[in-house]
Amino acid sequence: MAGNSLGTQFRITTWGESHGPAVGVVIDGCPAGIELDEKKIQKRLDKRRVGQSAITSQRQEPDEARILSGVFEGKTTGAPIQIEIENKDADSSSYDKIKNVFRPGHADFTYIKKYGIRDHRGGGRSSARETACRVAGGAVAREFLKTQGIYVFAHTVQVSHIKATKFDASVIEKNDVRCADEVAAKKMVERILEVRKDGDSVGGIIEVRGIGVPAGLGEPVFDKINADLAKALMSINAVKGVEIGSGFSAVELTGSEHNDPMRIRGAKPAFLTNHSGGIDGGISNGNKIVARIALKPTPSILKEQQTLDINEKETTITVEGRHDPCVVPRAVPVAEAMMLVTLADHLLRNRSAKV
Amino acid sequence: MAGNSLGTQFRITTWGESHGPAVGVVIDGCPAGIELDEKKIQKRLDKRRVGQSAITSQRQEPDEARILSGVFEGKTTGAPIQIEIENKDADSSSYDKIKNVFRPGHADFTYIKKYGIRDHRGGGRSSARETACRVAGGAVAREFLKTQGIYVFAHTVQVSHIKATKFDASVIEKNDVRCADEVAAKKMVERILEVRKDGDSVGGIIEVRGIGVPAGLGEPVFDKINADLAKALMSINAVKGVEIGSGFSAVELTGSEHNDPMRIRGAKPAFLTNHSGGIDGGISNGNKIVARIALKPTPSILKEQQTLDINEKETTITVEGRHDPCVVPRAVPVAEAMMLVTLADHLLRNRSAKV
Amino acid sequence: MAGNSLGTQFRITTWGESHGPAVGVVIDGCPAGIELDEKKIQKRLDKRRVGQSAITSQRQEPDEARILSGVFEGKTTGAPIQIEIENKDADSSSYDKIKNVFRPGHADFTYIKKYGIRDHRGGGRSSARETACRVAGGAVAREFLKTQGIYVFAHTVQVSHIKATKFDASVIEKNDVRCADEVAAKKMVERILEVRKDGDSVGGIIEVRGIGVPAGLGEPVFDKINADLAKALMSINAVKGVEIGSGFSAVELTGSEHNDPMRIRGAKPAFLTNHSGGIDGGISNGNKIVARIALKPTPSILKEQQTLDINEKETTITVEGRHDPCVVPRAVPVAEAMMLVTLADHLLRNRSAKV
Amino acid sequence: MAGNSLGTQFRITTWGESHGPAVGVVIDGCPAGIELDEKKIQKRLDKRRVGQSAITSQRQEPDEARILSGVFEGKTTGAPIQIEIENKDADSSSYDKIKNVFRPGHADFTYIKKYGIRDHRGGGRSSARETACRVAGGAVAREFLKTQGIYVFAHTVQVSHIKATKFDASVIEKNDVRCADEVAAKKMVERILEVRKDGDSVGGIIEVRGIGVPAGLGEPVFDKINADLAKALMSINAVKGVEIGSGFSAVELTGSEHNDPMRIRGAKPAFLTNHSGGIDGGISNGNKIVARIALKPTPSILKEQQTLDINEKETTITVEGRHDPCVVPRAVPVAEAMMLVTLADHLLRNRSAKV
Repeated sequence: MAGNSLGTQFRITTWGESHGPAVGVVIDGCPAGIELDEKKIQKRLDKRRVGQSAITSQRQEPDEARILSGVFEGKTTGAPIQIEIENKDADSSSYDKIKNVFRPGHADFTYIKKYGIRDHRGGGRSSARETACRVAGGAVAREFLKTQGIYVFAHTVQVSHIKATKFDASVIEKNDVRCADEVAAKKMVERILEVRKDGDSVGGIIEVRGIGVPAGLGEPVFDKINADLAKALMSINAVKGVEIGSGFSAVELTGSEHNDPMRIRGAKPAFLTNHSGGIDGGISNGNKIVARIALKPTPSILKEQQTLDINEKETTITVEGRHDPCVVPRAVPVAEAMMLVTLADHLLRNRSAKV
Repeated sequence: MAGNSLGTQFRITTWGESHGPAVGVVIDGCPAGIELDEKKIQKRLDKRRVGQSAITSQRQEPDEARILSGVFEGKTTGAPIQIEIENKDADSSSYDKIKNVFRPGHADFTYIKKYGIRDHRGGGRSSARETACRVAGGAVAREFLKTQGIYVFAHTVQVSHIKATKFDASVIEKNDVRCADEVAAKKMVERILEVRKDGDSVGGIIEVRGIGVPAGLGEPVFDKINADLAKALMSINAVKGVEIGSGFSAVELTGSEHNDPMRIRGAKPAFLTNHSGGIDGGISNGNKIVARIALKPTPSILKEQQTLDINEKETTITVEGRHDPCVVPRAVPVAEAMMLVTLADHLLRNRSAKV
Repeated sequence: MAGNSLGTQFRITTWGESHGPAVGVVIDGCPAGIELDEKKIQKRLDKRRVGQSAITSQRQEPDEARILSGVFEGKTTGAPIQIEIENKDADSSSYDKIKNVFRPGHADFTYIKKYGIRDHRGGGRSSARETACRVAGGAVAREFLKTQGIYVFAHTVQVSHIKATKFDASVIEKNDVRCADEVAAKKMVERILEVRKDGDSVGGIIEVRGIGVPAGLGEPVFDKINADLAKALMSINAVKGVEIGSGFSAVELTGSEHNDPMRIRGAKPAFLTNHSGGIDGGISNGNKIVARIALKPTPSILKEQQTLDINEKETTITVEGRHDPCVVPRAVPVAEAMMLVTLADHLLRNRSAKV
Repeated sequence: MAGNSLGTQFRITTWGESHGPAVGVVIDGCPAGIELDEKKIQKRLDKRRVGQSAITSQRQEPDEARILSGVFEGKTTGAPIQIEIENKDADSSSYDKIKNVFRPGHADFTYIKKYGIRDHRGGGRSSARETACRVAGGAVAREFLKTQGIYVFAHTVQVSHIKATKFDASVIEKNDVRCADEVAAKKMVERILEVRKDGDSVGGIIEVRGIGVPAGLGEPVFDKINADLAKALMSINAVKGVEIGSGFSAVELTGSEHNDPMRIRGAKPAFLTNHSGGIDGGISNGNKIVARIALKPTPSILKEQQTLDINEKETTITVEGRHDPCVVPRAVPVAEAMMLVTLADHLLRNRSAKV
């Protein structure tokens, strides 16, 4: 099976290299009748765009989305939706120097091993530029989910050793790291500037939430909604871990502490806690879906590192170019997109559950 | 897409309920010419079996595997392999009392919400009994991988708050928790007995390793090998988190600390560290594959809990029956199976990478 | 992708060899809440069974279906349904003589070329015995479709050069060839007995009809309903051609003759003719679905034929054993099953067409 | 499962509407290292282009292929290949008149029934313009197959009642109908001009051949190579029937006439006849693959026809615009493309057959 598609009934297929003429996404299986235009997609792409703030890469890409198919008179038609984003500020010159050397922590070595050939310009297919297409696909999923009362958002909960300790949704988009804790946000930005000055980088943790998700989504025993979320989120560049609900902290709890008690609240079934992250037995339970991802520090750093060249000779490398010292803030809309696509897919799949 | 299959080129489909006549697995896409017999499967099933030790459920299931197809004169033929395991000690009586009440932390509520009907006996389809089929499927994948010099094993690295701090592979199968640290193992067993006495349960962490995996496995950008591993592992009952390599600990490292330096060792490319967990850019890099999963405490506990009945009335429940106070030890072979199937699938998929 | 599954949302996976211990089918994705028991499946299997009449093989297989999962208290639960059929009268002795010789028109040569190994007993996986599993899967699809007012049946329209010229549905199950024209049926039986006496065999044509299929099924541009029907029908052993509606006869018509005019009949849109076979642009139009398949003469014949042995030496062969001189009558329920599964799958897929 | 993709390991996904800004195709799973440039694709697109001769539509579309990804320094990289074709001569004005009326024999009625919305301009997604994308995808498959010594071509064997009776491959591209029989070709052209004058249309039959296909391709029991070819070919607009090898003519032969005898020729296994069409038991046998498709007469005709409007009122229609009176000649490269993609996919899938 070819590997550039995600989802089954609602399926996105991304294509394009960092420094090729364009990148894009085909969304197949989007139901007909959803209101969609380029502004709705652009709004989301703008959140992932480079050059937004002092802490991101200074590459200038307008990232303009163009819808080429699947929408007629402002509505989806059921036909595949092609969204295309031109690459405008692709500067391959800084990559020429390192085209024959494997950047540590990057996919250079593994792409050569797998394919025997590699588009080295800007990381080619393995570049995070590909995630713009995920965001575009997620924006379409978002419009579909909106019609079903479902909403998804993400926020940064940790950068380096600095953790958010408060949650104020209204401040997320007001700071450069997309953190719901203003005080922590400031420290996170400081920490990022500090490592950048040092020619280094840091990682972080993002939390994604799905609000208004009805009970019933997920297809046991393999396509459980947590399993499909884990896959979608783990497929994001730099992600090293995925948690649902209590995640790794579940390990130190007992069953009596961890099980979410059920009561009736507002005449409806409710869970008094949400250690499950909104999922029991691989199926959504009606509570908030909560997932967290750990992102490693950006591998592109100015410090000299030990590596090999393509002839497998030992050498060292210093990665120049315009890199983010911390990919976490720009990965926030990508993480949202992955949950959006997964929920859209499972919402459609669940339509087959009963006769 | 129906959800009971895992893998594409090498694909397992499991079926069966805890208290039905049998459970089983169809393995489709297994290459022809692999030596296979029931003993090889039985050996693995025995590791997952109940009633093995003082700390597991006392349900007595011989779990005898029967191969019904796909093997001829001791070799796989390329035809689908059906492996069946009869349910012999299914005692549904203890479940009758709770058939109209949702067990907290279980799939009872979500199955009813999704399907409108539920085989309550022993948890039906959502029972961990289904994982016996995964182990059988994994045993077949193991024989295939063996022919390619690949080996997979797993071990318990944490139970409750007790962490393994040593690694001695030779002791893993010599203690009841399958821990590579003998001293920690003893404490883990004590902790499990303690919570059981208390009518409670605990969780833990399992590490799975893939040895001898060649560089090149994984299909970016969505079917990355880490993404497919995350899905397979997250689909195991009770799993709340998945990590690859450095996992969540990557967050507090800088890029210069995290990037794995490359050198030549023994005339071959080598990584001086393995923060990547053997995977860069979603493709195996030739280093050991390392994944970890967090399992929540068993939800079936003797303590009284708040819940609802199927008429959505508030009530309480005490879950009797023969339950493991900690599912971690028996999940070890299941975690292995999930990595085995994923590697087998990707090994075949990778045969298409080059012309 | 492994090849023993058909369908996506409603999916059957068959397994088993002609002379192994059993054959079976897993039905995954069947909606919950459908009434199902073994009698409903048995009724359909009995129509495909051998030894039914003077013109079929005299192998005696009771073909008893056993449901092992997915049904609880008489209803489907949404879990995969495993149906198993034991092989009881497998006599491999007549196959021993020819295990090293390729039977012309059979899959012996191609299985060896593909897999390097072959279960020669009774044709192994390539035996028409596998179609019993399709019939069982189709029987489940039939129960689902029944809840939606959809009905499928098939009948023989040609054997050798003898064509049915009348259509009386009531006589189909009253003659050994399952023909809706009593007079033609008699001639067909005579022709079959004639070729059998001669140690030879004949082919024929089956027509399959889907009644009550709503407009809207089919997923352009590749998973059109006619395309998926063509695949499902062509996958039946011995099928060499598939037609929808006018089929090959369309070639000699003009557009003005072929286009089906639309009028209002009974206050509903109606087509005055059905050259389309109920499908326009790959989507059902509400009219009867009509497909036809051409089956080649059974390749197993008593006459001596030129062939090779497994060492690729020239030799001759005479195929003994208990073979049908004409597979057409027993392929009628198989053809029905293929349309049933395809319609069930597309009915579920179509639930995603609109927001 | 979304329906705009074909193939699994080698997979094409087409997108775009007849009168939108562009149409295109993503080819995912194409092995790395294949020489590819736009000229190779253009050469094939030019064969499908309109305005080529007196007997095709006079719409003027240059159909210029642009490769946007997946190719680096003249070679495929293993990344998805996006090929885009701008729509330049889309004239929607003639469609405005009929936007509220269902054209008989078209997908207008079924698209509305399925999606509730329809891009009526030029037939939207259901337009044969989409097949340009198939041809582009097929051109990529062709380059891959070439590296394996496999070649595919198609030719017209019947138009209306006129059948080719000779086969001279060298004349196929020298006449407007792509017929291997020069004399028949002239009559076919005359017949087409005759019906066009009459405001009517005709159908025909195309034969597709695969040369050099090794034994072993096909994945029984559902993804047999004949089954997947049948699906791919039946998914082409206007196709009503598919045959493999002897096809419907097999019905009137006996087994002794139909079975292909095997002998050694040139030190290799050979079949003395090819009734099988190069496929036994769903697996290629090393002989030529031969398939035929029946195309209905173009539904767009100038003659007045009975139909309904979108309010389901009875009316009549006369379809103006620039239509081919016979789609057969332009469908020849499309038929080739469908076989090319299917063979490429199965060639890769077969790499998993043995250990």
